[in-house]
Amino acid sequence: MSFPTIVPTANPTLAAQLEDAINNKTKPIGSLGALETLARQLGLVQGSTAVTIDRPAILVFAGDHGVVAEGISAYPQDVTWQMVENFLAEGAAINVFARQNDAALHVVDAGVNHDFGPRLGLIDRKIAPGTRNFAVEPAMSPEQCATAMQHGAALVAGLPGNVIGFGEMGIGNTTTAAAIMHKLTGVPVAACVGAGTGLTADGVLRKQGVIEAAAAHHAGVDDPLAVLTTFGGFEIAMMTGAMLEAAHQRKLLLIDGFIVTSALLVAARIAPPILDYCVFAHCSDESGHRRMLDAIAAKPLLQLGLRLGEGTGAALALPLLHAAANFLNQMATFASASVSEQSDNGTPA
Amino acid sequence: MSFPTIVPTANPTLAAQLEDAINNKTKPIGSLGALETLARQLGLVQGSTAVTIDRPAILVFAGDHGVVAEGISAYPQDVTWQMVENFLAEGAAINVFARQNDAALHVVDAGVNHDFGPRLGLIDRKIAPGTRNFAVEPAMSPEQCATAMQHGAALVAGLPGNVIGFGEMGIGNTTTAAAIMHKLTGVPVAACVGAGTGLTADGVLRKQGVIEAAAAHHAGVDDPLAVLTTFGGFEIAMMTGAMLEAAHQRKLLLIDGFIVTSALLVAARIAPPILDYCVFAHCSDESGHRRMLDAIAAKPLLQLGLRLGEGTGAALALPLLHAAANFLNQMATFASASVSEQSDNGTPA
Repeated sequence: MSFPTIVPTANPTLAAQLEDAINNKTKPIGSLGALETLARQLGLVQGSTAVTIDRPAILVFAGDHGVVAEGISAYPQDVTWQMVENFLAEGAAINVFARQNDAALHVVDAGVNHDFGPRLGLIDRKIAPGTRNFAVEPAMSPEQCATAMQHGAALVAGLPGNVIGFGEMGIGNTTTAAAIMHKLTGVPVAACVGAGTGLTADGVLRKQGVIEAAAAHHAGVDDPLAVLTTFGGFEIAMMTGAMLEAAHQRKLLLIDGFIVTSALLVAARIAPPILDYCVFAHCSDESGHRRMLDAIAAKPLLQLGLRLGEGTGAALALPLLHAAANFLNQMATFASASVSEQSDNGTPA
Repeated sequence: MSFPTIVPTANPTLAAQLEDAINNKTKPIGSLGALETLARQLGLVQGSTAVTIDRPAILVFAGDHGVVAEGISAYPQDVTWQMVENFLAEGAAINVFARQNDAALHVVDAGVNHDFGPRLGLIDRKIAPGTRNFAVEPAMSPEQCATAMQHGAALVAGLPGNVIGFGEMGIGNTTTAAAIMHKLTGVPVAACVGAGTGLTADGVLRKQGVIEAAAAHHAGVDDPLAVLTTFGGFEIAMMTGAMLEAAHQRKLLLIDGFIVTSALLVAARIAPPILDYCVFAHCSDESGHRRMLDAIAAKPLLQLGLRLGEGTGAALALPLLHAAANFLNQMATFASASVSEQSDNGTPA
């Protein structure tokens, strides 16, 4: 399987121009904190000091997981398709936040265990009605994984705009994501698992045991694609493919929570420069997310105790992207506004 | 001096209704984290489960500080009036962020050391061309302080809408705010002072020494109004008065960074229930802000390393207020969307 080329965004000349542009704005040096970091990244991704946030889109991928047979979720599997219906009816949190922030929302059936029939607004890329149970056998075949990744890439290739947010829905998928995290980062399973949608402490222990047994069962699996095939979900594989294509096209990737970040872990092992294109929307309250972010040296924008998925964190971070672009494009400079600058040594002039 | 009545927002019946409304939304219990806390607060402040964010306004108060004579700022005092000109020309960060977030921006001259003349868009409430130097004498007279507070209250009384964000501009005012913090919280001066707009380490030490000497000089001053009068700025006193009136009118107060929070410290000592009405936009990178927030048990929404003031943090937090109101008003319930609920014990149904 071949992957699109992703080039690092490093560009010392442009970086210096961006630094100058940011430092000449009428504010103390560095005083816009993370927004300045974001403005520099936007500039490097877009290859310009005149940045734009153009038609941001949020892709929500839904899929079911055979591993739910092990009793690892607080909700029944039917909630996956029921929530897809809720997305289509515009009643879910992601609908509210995407609408608020003028992001186009695209809902993809990557492999839900339900026959939706042809439905307005639902993008049908169903690989199968759910993965197999990775506690017993590989979740998918290598062909299914490749097809899922190709679908994800093709969806992104057909989108306008320069910012893609990622979201997901799939009962059981924090278990899947925790397994991928454990395999790709080496973090012990106990530190990868969390309550998901609301497991009790006993439920979390059960989930940990299922992943530990499965990791032992599939002991030889280490290659990132093999990990994705063995433990992954269709929605996760589709996101991995979509992310690789989005970075290839020099779009900005807005990474949501625990499950979306697990898809990126795979993508970053395939093409490390993809991280240059990623903005990390938030640190999830799902307990493994902080260490997952640490594993790729990611600094999240928001810490709001979110643990909903669907791309909600990505949608909520969009105003900060706009703020970064807007201050860079719209603020006056010390010269243009005739404001006195700071003295070199930080003491009064 | 009399102050407007501020009643606590506690209302057990409404709180239970809000909790039900939030928990019936199609999401795992608690999964919207800080946004759920915010939705509950909005409901209690507005006395309803149908909350609104109506015509939010940001008031930016500017004033000069006699204590700059002690060499405690990295920028010359002229920057205060130059930045007011920048606000009027719409070139500052707060202009960009208020515009992005559809907040009305009101710029108030509370006591800038500059003659602006009559100017479109500038609200002239100048008490004097800057305070006196609190290293030597009280910054203002009791009459000046009372007048400033009354002006602030009257400005808020004339505003429509139900959300008021607070911002400020004043070279030297992190020194003023640190002195107020020290006096009202008892936190040692060394833990109250920071780099402000960009002091060197030596500059910060100098600032600390100035405040310590002034605190000794005005040793008997403890009452919150006396602290405000002795160390405060006109912009800070005006904010304190404005905040008291805003909470009296059951508006939501959006608190920005270090200086704005120092004005709230005074208000909260005068009328503790004001804290029920406050949303803390962000934790500033100014080093004393975290402890200042801790002193009033405030949990900030954003941690972006901002240290600009002007109300920029308040403006950037507005989308989160909208998100809290929107999810409460617009999301489907489990019943309305026919989505299965979690089992009681957090294990699969």
